[in-house]
Amino acid sequence: MKLLEDKIASEGLVLPGNILKVDQFLNHQIDPMFMNEMGKEFAKLFKDDGITKIITVESSGIAPAVLTGLQMEVPVVFARKHKSLTLNDNIYSSDVYSYTKQTNNKISIDKRFINSTDNILVIDDFLANGQAVLGLLDIAKKAGANVNGVGIVIEKSFQKGHKIIKDSGIHLESLARIASLENEKVTFE
Amino acid sequence: MKLLEDKIASEGLVLPGNILKVDQFLNHQIDPMFMNEMGKEFAKLFKDDGITKIITVESSGIAPAVLTGLQMEVPVVFARKHKSLTLNDNIYSSDVYSYTKQTNNKISIDKRFINSTDNILVIDDFLANGQAVLGLLDIAKKAGANVNGVGIVIEKSFQKGHKIIKDSGIHLESLARIASLENEKVTFE
Repeated sequence: MKLLEDKIASEGLVLPGNILKVDQFLNHQIDPMFMNEMGKEFAKLFKDDGITKIITVESSGIAPAVLTGLQMEVPVVFARKHKSLTLNDNIYSSDVYSYTKQTNNKISIDKRFINSTDNILVIDDFLANGQAVLGLLDIAKKAGANVNGVGIVIEKSFQKGHKIIKDSGIHLESLARIASLENEKVTFE
Repeated sequence: MKLLEDKIASEGLVLPGNILKVDQFLNHQIDPMFMNEMGKEFAKLFKDDGITKIITVESSGIAPAVLTGLQMEVPVVFARKHKSLTLNDNIYSSDVYSYTKQTNNKISIDKRFINSTDNILVIDDFLANGQAVLGLLDIAKKAGANVNGVGIVIEKSFQKGHKIIKDSGIHLESLARIASLENEKVTFE
């Protein structure tokens, strides 16, 4: 998506350690009109996938997921993060390791909100090592739901998440694909 | 907002301890089309307040804030929650006590995203004791920003938040006002 690449190039900040800071419009301050354009783009890319529900993870996934849900006219469920989790029969949960923060989180979705009749689209703001997306896929599997698509705002294509999702055969679409952040410069695929 | 009251009456669940569970459409599963209607309602209620920016707190405030921002065509900033906080010169932060969870959190907003030229609308999903809203007002004050409105999806009018905000003189609008949750029954104002 050209508009997104332009925005990353002009407003994104590359920090040491392959970190791309886009808190200006994506994950701290949000530009709702621009986010709505991304929702329209996802709706177009996944229009033939029979999507009935969108799932994401709090917090940065919520805005793109909700605006995609608005465009596709389907409900959105966001998984909650927990440091630890007491046993609870009413939720599906999965472990997610954060490479950035070097912490383990559990993420969970209430069993009432995901089931075997769902055709799921997973939406998230970033795809790097793929841990969050894999956690959501694991939850969908536990619920017996189909995952028909994965939509990512910004993909770091040089990290392993892209290949893992692609190899699983799921329809993957990323609005911006970054080939490299070396020398503190954004290079797109 | 009649549509919201109907939805609370039909889908809300009252639990012991004055807890109203609306995770079916507001804070776990989200109905984006319905949320967009709420955004339109907030945009109408605050149209004369000269709003230039919306602030909220992660995670449940994000969806209503973003859809209100979409309708008002202004940026949205969500404050992040932290268990503790290392000193950081680049953020405004405030302490927020959660009566439900009986924990203290810090919430913070990057100094780049709030300043003295802003006319702020605070949006949140719930108003009970008002701690989260007061934390956001405190951050706005530290930034020298004006707060011109507070918009709440569901207000528990029998708890102290409503009175505190009203007494401060800020334009407060709540889409649903609950007078009582006694006997596990929702009674609106």
